[in-house]
Amino acid sequence: MKVIEIKKSVFADNDKDAQALRGELKDKGVFLLNLMSSPGSGKTTTLIRTINLLKDKLDIAVMEADIDSDVDAVKIQEATGVGTIQLHTGGMCHLDAEMTRQGLENLPAGGARLVILENVGNLVCPAEFDTGAVKNAMILSVPEGHDKPLKYPLMFSICDIVLINKTDVLPYFDFDMEKCREYIRLRNPKAEVIPICARTGEGIDAFAAWLERNVKEWNNQ
Amino acid sequence: MKVIEIKKSVFADNDKDAQALRGELKDKGVFLLNLMSSPGSGKTTTLIRTINLLKDKLDIAVMEADIDSDVDAVKIQEATGVGTIQLHTGGMCHLDAEMTRQGLENLPAGGARLVILENVGNLVCPAEFDTGAVKNAMILSVPEGHDKPLKYPLMFSICDIVLINKTDVLPYFDFDMEKCREYIRLRNPKAEVIPICARTGEGIDAFAAWLERNVKEWNNQ
Repeated sequence: MKVIEIKKSVFADNDKDAQALRGELKDKGVFLLNLMSSPGSGKTTTLIRTINLLKDKLDIAVMEADIDSDVDAVKIQEATGVGTIQLHTGGMCHLDAEMTRQGLENLPAGGARLVILENVGNLVCPAEFDTGAVKNAMILSVPEGHDKPLKYPLMFSICDIVLINKTDVLPYFDFDMEKCREYIRLRNPKAEVIPICARTGEGIDAFAAWLERNVKEWNNQ
Repeated sequence: MKVIEIKKSVFADNDKDAQALRGELKDKGVFLLNLMSSPGSGKTTTLIRTINLLKDKLDIAVMEADIDSDVDAVKIQEATGVGTIQLHTGGMCHLDAEMTRQGLENLPAGGARLVILENVGNLVCPAEFDTGAVKNAMILSVPEGHDKPLKYPLMFSICDIVLINKTDVLPYFDFDMEKCREYIRLRNPKAEVIPICARTGEGIDAFAAWLERNVKEWNNQ
């Protein structure tokens, strides 16, 4: 069986722009979280649960990026009441720092301290573009399989935290949690791994605590 | 809630190249199927089942595109015995016609009549690049949710057939099959929709029959 290597290009300016955006966020005391995953792994449901745990302690705003439709933004606004905007990427598969900045400039005034960007559902491209976020989080859901860190190495290597969602359906899938943790460690020994179930709420408190701790640290640095 | 439109660029040359590649395939009597889906929706398992139903009637070869790893190519080769090559995209999120051509040129000699390209797991970018395939197929799996045609419109609009996989876990997910069919029709009234379960083999005969019929039509046109 042959393996053929096809080349990719490099993006230099975006890295600089993302660094600058992080500096601006630091000055304003805003913590930006970039949340990524495959389509349908439960980003929106996880956010709703998490925001409802945190919204009394922190001013939160959400930017929902999608190629089309605004179902997620509507859902989050209705379920949490926090300020939410929808970013339509017009077919683009990811957000870069400049696109993220366009979103931030359009957030409702009033100064959210925690802004969550729900990136386009995609395990490939969003990993290649620094959005300017302070931390990167991703969700891998049980039905997707425990081998994903082997197949999408960059995504796992750039994430500070990996949430393993849909643990309620573990009995119905051949998903090996220990192997999954091992594969994630292989890509990224420092990544925090938290099994969650957004449907039942299990594990969301641990994610919310991680987020709260990181927002505090960002403001105290 | 605001909606902000971010622009995307257009790819003109690839369309021409893909048209040319289709012409070459026609001359050689080769039918190329481009199979797309999210990460973990069951492309590889579906292919193994389908190839095992068809391999005695048709010479088949498989091109596995992945960013990294060769687990899928090894799996398919071991489970079906058909010629399989792995295409590493070096981080790229999709294949275009030129990349597909590189794969075709590296296939084992001997003239497969059906070549299946398992594209990178991604519902966004692969839809934007014509690979030169005769037909496009995609898999949507039950855990991903029935709203995906609303969120990834281009993917659904370019596919000739949509397989709805993992029907065995329907009882554990809020997946509305009728709504899903309705949303697919909205994007693409002509798309064939076949519910399948790659794990149990349910529905695979219908997909294999569709494929066999299309290969014949391609050769008789």
